[in-house]
Amino acid sequence: MSQPARATAFAPASTSNLAVGFDLLGHPLQRFGDRVTAVRAATPGVVMGPITGTVTGLPADPALNTAGRAVMRMLRDQAPGLGMEISIEKGIPLSSGIGGSAASAVAAVVAANALLPRPLATEELFAYALRGEEVASGAIHGDNVAPSLFGGLVLVRSAIPADVVRLPAPPGLRCVLALPELTLNTRDARAVLPRQVPLRDVTTQCANLAGVLAGCYRGDLALIGRSLRDVLVEPHRAALIPGFHAVQAAAMDAGALGCSISGAGPSLFAWCAGDAVADAVALAMRDAFARADVAASAWVSPVDGPGARVESVE
Amino acid sequence: MSQPARATAFAPASTSNLAVGFDLLGHPLQRFGDRVTAVRAATPGVVMGPITGTVTGLPADPALNTAGRAVMRMLRDQAPGLGMEISIEKGIPLSSGIGGSAASAVAAVVAANALLPRPLATEELFAYALRGEEVASGAIHGDNVAPSLFGGLVLVRSAIPADVVRLPAPPGLRCVLALPELTLNTRDARAVLPRQVPLRDVTTQCANLAGVLAGCYRGDLALIGRSLRDVLVEPHRAALIPGFHAVQAAAMDAGALGCSISGAGPSLFAWCAGDAVADAVALAMRDAFARADVAASAWVSPVDGPGARVESVE
Repeated sequence: MSQPARATAFAPASTSNLAVGFDLLGHPLQRFGDRVTAVRAATPGVVMGPITGTVTGLPADPALNTAGRAVMRMLRDQAPGLGMEISIEKGIPLSSGIGGSAASAVAAVVAANALLPRPLATEELFAYALRGEEVASGAIHGDNVAPSLFGGLVLVRSAIPADVVRLPAPPGLRCVLALPELTLNTRDARAVLPRQVPLRDVTTQCANLAGVLAGCYRGDLALIGRSLRDVLVEPHRAALIPGFHAVQAAAMDAGALGCSISGAGPSLFAWCAGDAVADAVALAMRDAFARADVAASAWVSPVDGPGARVESVE
Repeated sequence: MSQPARATAFAPASTSNLAVGFDLLGHPLQRFGDRVTAVRAATPGVVMGPITGTVTGLPADPALNTAGRAVMRMLRDQAPGLGMEISIEKGIPLSSGIGGSAASAVAAVVAANALLPRPLATEELFAYALRGEEVASGAIHGDNVAPSLFGGLVLVRSAIPADVVRLPAPPGLRCVLALPELTLNTRDARAVLPRQVPLRDVTTQCANLAGVLAGCYRGDLALIGRSLRDVLVEPHRAALIPGFHAVQAAAMDAGALGCSISGAGPSLFAWCAGDAVADAVALAMRDAFARADVAASAWVSPVDGPGARVESVE
């Protein structure tokens, strides 16, 4: 069999933090995602091909591009003689809080992996995707990379060394994602965070993290509903998002289990029990953003959705 | 059937915090416990009877005594005309970090409950036992009261209103408790805690809390072993316990999954996989305390042990 010369992979957007799991928890989102095509090239190393889609102006230097950097690291370790051209079709708006840079890095390593003489296991791709995302976010967390790569509700106990645990999502659990037409740079969103936080708040946050985890394992949506509250990070970032409190209140009034900032924002997520509630919450959040003079879309995703996939290999 | 006139209840000691669950997690310990006898009295209200056992000098004023106060609150709400004499046989050394005040309060409400015209469900006793423990600790947490009352590994997501979740303990999980012949006042142990903690440490602590919880649900002892580390509280309290670092190192060298301070100290707990490891760890911890010139005992408990029980009703 001849070696494949071209592979395309898709990686979904994702929501991270999930109110109680700052830098730790995430799950994929349907509807948006990034698509990366890797094509064998004659010269060893990585060159960037076209970058199309919702985003323009991404770095064409592979060392500065999340997708390019991830594949560079991968080839350096796994196939130093190989050359690839990496092209990106961005489906995820930049700086929206739904893991766009992670998805590009994930799609890139999944596509490139399909062209390796000895493809790696999915678990082994995690570290390379992380290195790619690092270029964009300036930090290594993995709570977007892991759900985008593996799918499902995941706990990243540690990014390096990788310690990723798949958590069960109760049947019927849905995620509404409300995406305002605003951008919020991840670095800016990190800059508003205090270096020190009150120990009293930490205990509350830990109690709620434990409640959400136990609720997921027990399939106890009421326990999740009592616990899905962020007292640690949300108070600092809420002011960066016009209409935040009104949108959150609208989600809760419409029956959400909890609602907070998706990733570093400005998008918001709301967990809901079942499709009917989720549809009502999506409408309520979009309308509340509109009343705050912010155009926004909102849609419903499963929490336990699939991760990245190879779409074609030629 | 005539109303019973005398009831005796036993409540076990407990370990709380468990490295990753400050004020949130606990489980009972075997071997030590407090025993309380409630006897019907002619005059409404609570009087203290004899206080015997390992501890002397406990308050004889029921309003200042954990057991007395708990029963006072209970009678006030449930049977204002009833009178009881409460006597305590202390089995748990004071200020040792294994939930002595909680056990007294729990045994008291369990004994008194057996004398009520309409006894309450165990869940309803929790709030009264909490009020008793408050007298001794100056704060309300519930991470000793809940395991002593209900048994098992428990998460106290919230003490008031009560939100207590029983967590599964992996089969074979054992707890070694090393009890040095020292006392450490809970209020003093709280005083060394900073009001503010670094957000970076909070993320690490949350990751480890999530890892321990997921490990318990998955029965994954290796995950528990990677996660059972306290970066938040232990660094501040370790200096209050002579020999702490040597004893902790001895426990880990002997194969413990993790070892940290039990409650507010000075006792230490270590979780272990199986009885053989636990026995070796117990020996290692006792010896390490001895090398630090601290006499100590150490013994092995199940993590999933029973809670309080009525021993006799006459």
